[in-house]
Amino acid sequence: MTDATSLIAADWGTTSLRAYRIAGDGSVAGSVSLPLGILKVPDGDFDAVYGQVFGPWLDRADPVPVIAAGMIGSRQGWLEVPYLSAPSGVAEFAAGLGRVRTAAGGAMAIVPGISVTGDDGVPDVLRGEETQVIGAHLLGRAASGLVVVPGTHSKWILAEDGRITWFATFMTGEVFALLCQHSILGRLMRGDGEDAEAFRRGLAHGRSDDPRSAGLLHRLFSARTLGLFDRIPGEALRSYLSGLLIGAEIAEATTALSAWLDGIPSSLTIIGGAALTEAYGTALAGCGFSVDEVGEEAMVGGLVAIAKAAGLMG
Amino acid sequence: MTDATSLIAADWGTTSLRAYRIAGDGSVAGSVSLPLGILKVPDGDFDAVYGQVFGPWLDRADPVPVIAAGMIGSRQGWLEVPYLSAPSGVAEFAAGLGRVRTAAGGAMAIVPGISVTGDDGVPDVLRGEETQVIGAHLLGRAASGLVVVPGTHSKWILAEDGRITWFATFMTGEVFALLCQHSILGRLMRGDGEDAEAFRRGLAHGRSDDPRSAGLLHRLFSARTLGLFDRIPGEALRSYLSGLLIGAEIAEATTALSAWLDGIPSSLTIIGGAALTEAYGTALAGCGFSVDEVGEEAMVGGLVAIAKAAGLMG
Repeated sequence: MTDATSLIAADWGTTSLRAYRIAGDGSVAGSVSLPLGILKVPDGDFDAVYGQVFGPWLDRADPVPVIAAGMIGSRQGWLEVPYLSAPSGVAEFAAGLGRVRTAAGGAMAIVPGISVTGDDGVPDVLRGEETQVIGAHLLGRAASGLVVVPGTHSKWILAEDGRITWFATFMTGEVFALLCQHSILGRLMRGDGEDAEAFRRGLAHGRSDDPRSAGLLHRLFSARTLGLFDRIPGEALRSYLSGLLIGAEIAEATTALSAWLDGIPSSLTIIGGAALTEAYGTALAGCGFSVDEVGEEAMVGGLVAIAKAAGLMG
Repeated sequence: MTDATSLIAADWGTTSLRAYRIAGDGSVAGSVSLPLGILKVPDGDFDAVYGQVFGPWLDRADPVPVIAAGMIGSRQGWLEVPYLSAPSGVAEFAAGLGRVRTAAGGAMAIVPGISVTGDDGVPDVLRGEETQVIGAHLLGRAASGLVVVPGTHSKWILAEDGRITWFATFMTGEVFALLCQHSILGRLMRGDGEDAEAFRRGLAHGRSDDPRSAGLLHRLFSARTLGLFDRIPGEALRSYLSGLLIGAEIAEATTALSAWLDGIPSSLTIIGGAALTEAYGTALAGCGFSVDEVGEEAMVGGLVAIAKAAGLMG
């Protein structure tokens, strides 16, 4: 039976849960994507969500191994799995798996995150992106160099042979969502369509080094004033703000990279879903980077690789 | 009757509504403060709130003039009152008053805001703070020079003889509230007490010019990681984030001022409520500014002055 489930693999992050049923040959036999990230699980009852989502795939005579990566292993998740330190690769992550008992029977393995301490003494952490970097490496992509994983918390990662050596977090996606949903900036926005010209305009303003434009706390307000004065229509303000924040992230990240490294790499790999990868690809190419893009197959490949290295899957 | 109401004056902003009953001698005979800022008015029914809050003071044989300043005059408010341009002072604001009919009878006058266009071509706007600057000037304070009005949207304003000549907006207060209430940073916070040491630490990190710390989108994440690694207790994380954002605002504002002016003034006046004024006063004094502080009497004084200049009050 080629479609027998050999592994259930999950990307369980802050805002969403994506689960994959993996066949014996490592291919994806089925998948589901739900808005049940760890901050959205009702009453924090992860076990209930587990039973609902994974239950139908678990209902077999043979126990199926389950592995998850992402914020599900954080302090706000189901089980806090201690961070590894850098550099770490597939062997270290397999050895560091956490295991949580489930009401449905069996355990779910959780990939540990990784932490680094910056030269400025402030720690940084990631969970989930380590698995994507490992998967991309196995696909022959992002083998070494700079990797950008956009999302709720964007990560800029330096990898060597599939091992993570340095990274920095930018709260771009979460700040964007909060401003659209809850701030006065959202009040002038109309719809959630995309406007390429407004995105480019926001990008330019966000990454500008003109000191007369001050910094982000000031520039954000332009997403209100340009709407008030009809310089940008309400239908395009969301794209403008997206560009503004991604531009600010690129400016911040290249500043940090310049300080951390001798220079900034000229090429990079973006790992992520289609919409975000396209937005960041456009933005980063416009900033002069040579860009390679990898999709969700990186996460799946990484989860399978770690499961195999841990002996969960033959 | 010394407590006869000669004017009802209101500071009707984004997050709160403060209303004052003014006696004939200009003194405050009564006041009320409610969490009914324009973004919190149920169904946007400003008239209903007006009737509930001002109605008891309006129920007299003599019609009482009513004047309001703040975001109530914005596009998201009750009536959009066109912005004036800079420089503008009490005469221009009195001449530019908008008037909205109310179901309770009579009209409410609304002070116009003011707009400037930055050297970078991006417009900026304020509403409400013009009235505070006028009031402070009449009190013999903030006559000329740099004025900081912290709040949901902090304003850094240059004034000359009670007239506003330049300003810049920073979305500090709104971003802080959103991050505390809705982001993952709030998940590690415990209580809303104040911690002076954590505030200072956040302030230093927020205003640091160390390029290894990148910029705000990255630094915000330190309010999570320093909590995760028990470097700052959950009870102090809110103060840390407050300091971080105020520090970022000060760094941004002084950058903008340096670019706009020949130099940065060495003294400034803070106008606002006690808690915010104290936090900003501590922060700005720590950054080397000589600081003067003015409270809500600035708003009341400004509203009375504009009402008198417009002939609403004898």
